[in-house]
Amino acid sequence: MREIYLDNAATTRTDPEVAAFIERLSTEEYGNTSSLHLKGVEAEKRVREASRILADILKCSPQEILYTSGGTESDNLAIIGTALAKRRTGNRIIISAVEHAAVARTADFLTEFGFDVVRLPVGPDGIVRPESLQEVLTPDVILVSCMYVNSETGAVQPVAELAKLTHEMAPQASFHVDAVQAFGKYRIAPGRLGIDLMSVSSHKFHGPKGVGFLYIKKGTKIRPVIYGGGHQSGMRSGTENVPGAAGMAMAAKIAYDGLEEKMAKITALRERLREGLLELPDVTVNTPEGEFAAPHVLSATFAGVRAEVLLHALEADGICISAGSACSSNKPSPSATLIAMGVPEEALSSTVRFSFCKENTEEDVDETLASLKRQLPMLRRFVRK
Amino acid sequence: MREIYLDNAATTRTDPEVAAFIERLSTEEYGNTSSLHLKGVEAEKRVREASRILADILKCSPQEILYTSGGTESDNLAIIGTALAKRRTGNRIIISAVEHAAVARTADFLTEFGFDVVRLPVGPDGIVRPESLQEVLTPDVILVSCMYVNSETGAVQPVAELAKLTHEMAPQASFHVDAVQAFGKYRIAPGRLGIDLMSVSSHKFHGPKGVGFLYIKKGTKIRPVIYGGGHQSGMRSGTENVPGAAGMAMAAKIAYDGLEEKMAKITALRERLREGLLELPDVTVNTPEGEFAAPHVLSATFAGVRAEVLLHALEADGICISAGSACSSNKPSPSATLIAMGVPEEALSSTVRFSFCKENTEEDVDETLASLKRQLPMLRRFVRK
Repeated sequence: MREIYLDNAATTRTDPEVAAFIERLSTEEYGNTSSLHLKGVEAEKRVREASRILADILKCSPQEILYTSGGTESDNLAIIGTALAKRRTGNRIIISAVEHAAVARTADFLTEFGFDVVRLPVGPDGIVRPESLQEVLTPDVILVSCMYVNSETGAVQPVAELAKLTHEMAPQASFHVDAVQAFGKYRIAPGRLGIDLMSVSSHKFHGPKGVGFLYIKKGTKIRPVIYGGGHQSGMRSGTENVPGAAGMAMAAKIAYDGLEEKMAKITALRERLREGLLELPDVTVNTPEGEFAAPHVLSATFAGVRAEVLLHALEADGICISAGSACSSNKPSPSATLIAMGVPEEALSSTVRFSFCKENTEEDVDETLASLKRQLPMLRRFVRK
Repeated sequence: MREIYLDNAATTRTDPEVAAFIERLSTEEYGNTSSLHLKGVEAEKRVREASRILADILKCSPQEILYTSGGTESDNLAIIGTALAKRRTGNRIIISAVEHAAVARTADFLTEFGFDVVRLPVGPDGIVRPESLQEVLTPDVILVSCMYVNSETGAVQPVAELAKLTHEMAPQASFHVDAVQAFGKYRIAPGRLGIDLMSVSSHKFHGPKGVGFLYIKKGTKIRPVIYGGGHQSGMRSGTENVPGAAGMAMAAKIAYDGLEEKMAKITALRERLREGLLELPDVTVNTPEGEFAAPHVLSATFAGVRAEVLLHALEADGICISAGSACSSNKPSPSATLIAMGVPEEALSSTVRFSFCKENTEEDVDETLASLKRQLPMLRRFVRK
């Protein structure tokens, strides 16, 4: 059976070229960047090269790239590291109501230590209104965190506008963006957008798992959350994952090479799916239209069918999709994003996500639609009342 | 020029079989363990299999293995996670004076939050005397942390005895072992040794970089330090690095297959080097003898030669060694371990480390000795007075 993988927002296949490069570095250029001898210098060069590639993409300095173990660690470092650095400045943290758990749960953790976490509401489209930020921006705010692209719906947030407001009204605050679903899909220049901290995860754009980075604008007040041998100028201790960093940079380079063409193709696939879904009975789409949606994500609610049941029905045809965000470890709980959007309660457990990558084709979309068309009437007969 | 890599305590070459396995998983079985479909289930199975392999080696339960991004994160989680979980129980933490920076600096960080960190002295052999632990073990101690094998000298600590004392005199305390230099060299059953928490790093035993684990004995009070999607039962959020975990487990399996023969071979190489070094003028060895030293590490002081100069002289012959521990990121500062051992000040900057793996040969040792013999007289002429 042909496999149709439409869960690229959960994770992607590592580019074969990247995987081969990692294999070579692991067995040939395996030095520790802390070693002063030739193997160490060779490894250090690979990391410097990776930083240069990533910095070119972000139009920033290589010194502003800090390697981490992935998006979740990047988010944790941005939030806890800012709180540690600015705890004498203020105790308010503002996040959107639709953040990934790596931001939301980390902010919750800080409430134990006297931090006050304010959640910005979103409209029915899942998008934050800048006015709502304006209402809560006080000078004691130390951090505002808003994702670039929502992982469940693909909704794009007005980060530049939010960043501008933040810097105007709370000059002590850092502006953090979880760009895990945006990097590799958009050309992002954090410096120009007013972003101080930005989280990126490698495995979302055909890079290896277990590696990511945090963009840290020069001069941003932040403290480490992992201590030790003082690697990466003391900001993130631990032997550097050289093959991981180099592999991620190669994947980024591939992703940004001809980005616009690839994204146009993916957007067309998403729209083909959207149109097909809307022809089916009792299907609603939760993903905004046009520029307000990222190219690769489509969230849809199938009234009267449980998301997991639908997922397994498609799986039987070799089609992989996600129930909810699928970043949230196995047990699907009602999506905070959909709740914040005001999606009716009965629809929460009937919502699935399709997500694309450059490897998907029109045939993938058509076969998925055919499978749904065939199976939906049957699945709706077994609905739990 | 033939490369002779004697810096295996800094990092090791990934086993080619392991690197190929990782490549295959990254491009074929690339699912996210949180996904409910077949690609997710396939990935989840790989992680479960990895945990079973590691648990078999440690004679523990697979549920006691928690994946991290490496030894440093494991140490940070053990220390900060224990402090977070037990902060209402007590505020004293005991570590040895010769811990890796990933333990020492993390404990230092906690002093900012009212924790009291006590450092256990060591003898001239670099080994902790159990009596010194006995003197400072009070009921308000929440954590005792002592490494298994010292990364700079190879000295082996009496962890079982220290664990026993800890549990007798401070029943609320967890006993943590940084086993980064010991796993893959010793058969370690943490349950039998009284160890509650144990840090392991994959790249020290021919596994991939950027992955490690923390053994957490069932029932041990500990809190996460990285928050998010609730992966790994909520103890460590972040998309699981499936190829990393599976690759590490394969490397562990290879390491423990015929361990005794491999370690006997490495020990013989180390002794061959020790004997050769002691025939050279003004060389002292800082590594203990017999069972008090790990098989793979030899620390030696070359009076009148700066470590970095010696390192680069050997590098010119293709020989890679380390000045100090080389886990401490580039700028070599005086070694806390050697200071704690009472090594005279003038010797601190003249100490280097040789470290072996299964791939080293007698020829490696003999060529290193020949290079030293040839170069030492010349190097000593240029000594800074």
